[in-house]
Amino acid sequence: MNDNALEKTPLTLLGLGAMGTALARTWLDAGHPLTVWNRGPGRAEPLAALGARVAGSVTEAVAASGLVVLCLLDDASVDETLDGVDPTGKDLVNLTTSTPALARSRAAWAHGRGARFMDGGIMAVPPMIGVPASGGYIFYSGSRALFDAHRDTLAVPAGTSYVGEDAGSAALHDVALLSAMTGMFGGVSHAFALVRKEDIEPAAFARLLADWLVAMVPSVHLMASQLADGDYTRGVVSNLAMQVAGSPTLLRTAEEQGVSTELLTPYLSLMERRLAQGHGHEGTTGVVDLLAR
Amino acid sequence: MNDNALEKTPLTLLGLGAMGTALARTWLDAGHPLTVWNRGPGRAEPLAALGARVAGSVTEAVAASGLVVLCLLDDASVDETLDGVDPTGKDLVNLTTSTPALARSRAAWAHGRGARFMDGGIMAVPPMIGVPASGGYIFYSGSRALFDAHRDTLAVPAGTSYVGEDAGSAALHDVALLSAMTGMFGGVSHAFALVRKEDIEPAAFARLLADWLVAMVPSVHLMASQLADGDYTRGVVSNLAMQVAGSPTLLRTAEEQGVSTELLTPYLSLMERRLAQGHGHEGTTGVVDLLAR
Ligand SMILES: NC(=O)c1ccc[n+]([C@@H]2O[C@H](COP(=O)([O-])OP(=O)(O)OC[C@H]3O[C@@H](n4cnc5c(N)ncnc54)[C@H](OP(=O)(O)O)[C@@H]3O)[C@@H](O)[C@H]2O)c1
Ligand SMILES: NC(=O)c1ccc[n+]([C@@H]2O[C@H](COP(=O)([O-])OP(=O)(O)OC[C@H]3O[C@@H](n4cnc5c(N)ncnc54)[C@H](OP(=O)(O)O)[C@@H]3O)[C@@H](O)[C@H]2O)c1
Repeated sequence: MNDNALEKTPLTLLGLGAMGTALARTWLDAGHPLTVWNRGPGRAEPLAALGARVAGSVTEAVAASGLVVLCLLDDASVDETLDGVDPTGKDLVNLTTSTPALARSRAAWAHGRGARFMDGGIMAVPPMIGVPASGGYIFYSGSRALFDAHRDTLAVPAGTSYVGEDAGSAALHDVALLSAMTGMFGGVSHAFALVRKEDIEPAAFARLLADWLVAMVPSVHLMASQLADGDYTRGVVSNLAMQVAGSPTLLRTAEEQGVSTELLTPYLSLMERRLAQGHGHEGTTGVVDLLAR
Repeated sequence: MNDNALEKTPLTLLGLGAMGTALARTWLDAGHPLTVWNRGPGRAEPLAALGARVAGSVTEAVAASGLVVLCLLDDASVDETLDGVDPTGKDLVNLTTSTPALARSRAAWAHGRGARFMDGGIMAVPPMIGVPASGGYIFYSGSRALFDAHRDTLAVPAGTSYVGEDAGSAALHDVALLSAMTGMFGGVSHAFALVRKEDIEPAAFARLLADWLVAMVPSVHLMASQLADGDYTRGVVSNLAMQVAGSPTLLRTAEEQGVSTELLTPYLSLMERRLAQGHGHEGTTGVVDLLAR
């Protein structure tokens, strides 16, 4: 062990899949004493060659460090792995993708056993881990004391964004951004399908599409301010009535081009419902109200 | 009439709604002799005060200039307005939002009567017209000769993007970008609905959301290159199987937060169908194939 390693917080990592392995490498590179465990064989050896200590059991792995990070497949694998483990006095950080409610119940379980807990949501793919310029980062929520204590260690693999004491908040932020991305990719897929059979070069079209979407993104700030004060008319240039009037053109064009309207109709229907409720002079923000049951 | 006006191409504009009025002002400001017509009263007077000549009928308006621009409500109003008009020798530019097929049939009608025709799709709202820094622009397609002849005049209200001889191409580009935006706004609405009841400040969340969406937009270039060569595995970091495995977390989180899944399920279902067809090792681009009927 060199002097450098002595300064760095030791930690344990459970789970050496694609993401766990990427995380592990950055901590080893940064000189953190790292204990690793993986359910199946073969995953730990390359990391052992880089200096990781390989634990033979979860119990041994958890005992090895005060800070224990999990990066497993899913919630079921977390429950299975932690079953029978005594977390007393540990700082647990679960980077396995969870729902907000599961993150909260896991935090309660940990607190009940004298452990501090944070949940994390990784906004990056493995090649972005350890590459600050990639823009990848991790949402954290739960114990602020844990975050403050291990802030530097957690910042090694990716940027950190602490979003509150509610352990469910990181998962909620994670899922909210992924859901927004899903919508955007749905729209993008529809757009590519529309132009597909035409004599339109995909790369040229993609440039127009990218510029357009980037130009439209800032409208989320107007939406946020409308949601904050409840005035959905403020700053509206193209009102709901006008946008609903444009819907038939979107639908007819899809039909002309032989493209399914299944990705378009749900949002257009919500706009129409909101218009029918008498909100034609507002923007489209009221759709958010219709979604919440 | 001053010298400046003598140099500029005279034109006629049919339709003085919010958009037509914005267009008209920019041509008057730039010194173009402009003849205007509007179906109903009251719209032309403010423009007359700025120097526009007001035509008493469509026939008179069309006769006044070689270049005739239409900016009416919808396709029905265009048909109604042009009914009985002789377009022989005219350059017609229809900026009324149309579908590609209607733009093509209108081009055929014009050509059959010895007129040149272009269709346009306005990627701007009225406050962006005449404001180059706004980034607003207009797609044009149809007669290239018409575009070349009137390029400078057409560039007065907004940037121009000529997208091909096919008269339907401008409308197709317009609708494709609007459809993509609809998807993005659907995703954004879902995201705001998810965080709504939590102690999360909308403006702070909007900043995270905006940064995330802008960071995800460049994946359209990878999609385009995959569509161009048909290899949907190229450059894939997070494959379809992995993304489908993440779907239950998105759906469960929506349910936990009391948010309808109606904007999420169509795209998630398409990913699942594509996975079931054996494309788990690809990215999500194959969804485009499923949309085309
Ligand atoms: N990869 C990404 O792009 C990405 C991005 C953001 C977030 N994430 C999240 O990061 C987490 C890990 O993802 P990954 O890409 O590393 O997944 P992965 O490559 O599939 O690895 C899964 C890991 O979970 C372990 N595991 C599975 N079932 C288990 C069980 N029942 N008990 C104990 N261990 C079990 C596997 O161990 P074995 O070797 O024994 O199978 C393996 O170490 C997931 O929650 C994922 O959502 C991933
Ligand atoms: N506004 C935007 O944000 C925006 C953005 C992009 C594209 N566009 C497109 O631009 C076009 C015009 O939009 P706009 O905002 O100017 O609409 P608008 O303010 O509602 O004006 C509609 C115009 O169409 C005329 N009109 C309606 N029905 C007619 C008929 N049957 N015969 C003749 N004229 C008729 C109206 O004349 P009266 O005064 O007699 O009613 C008025 O001049 C539309 O195709 C729209 O899709 C608008």
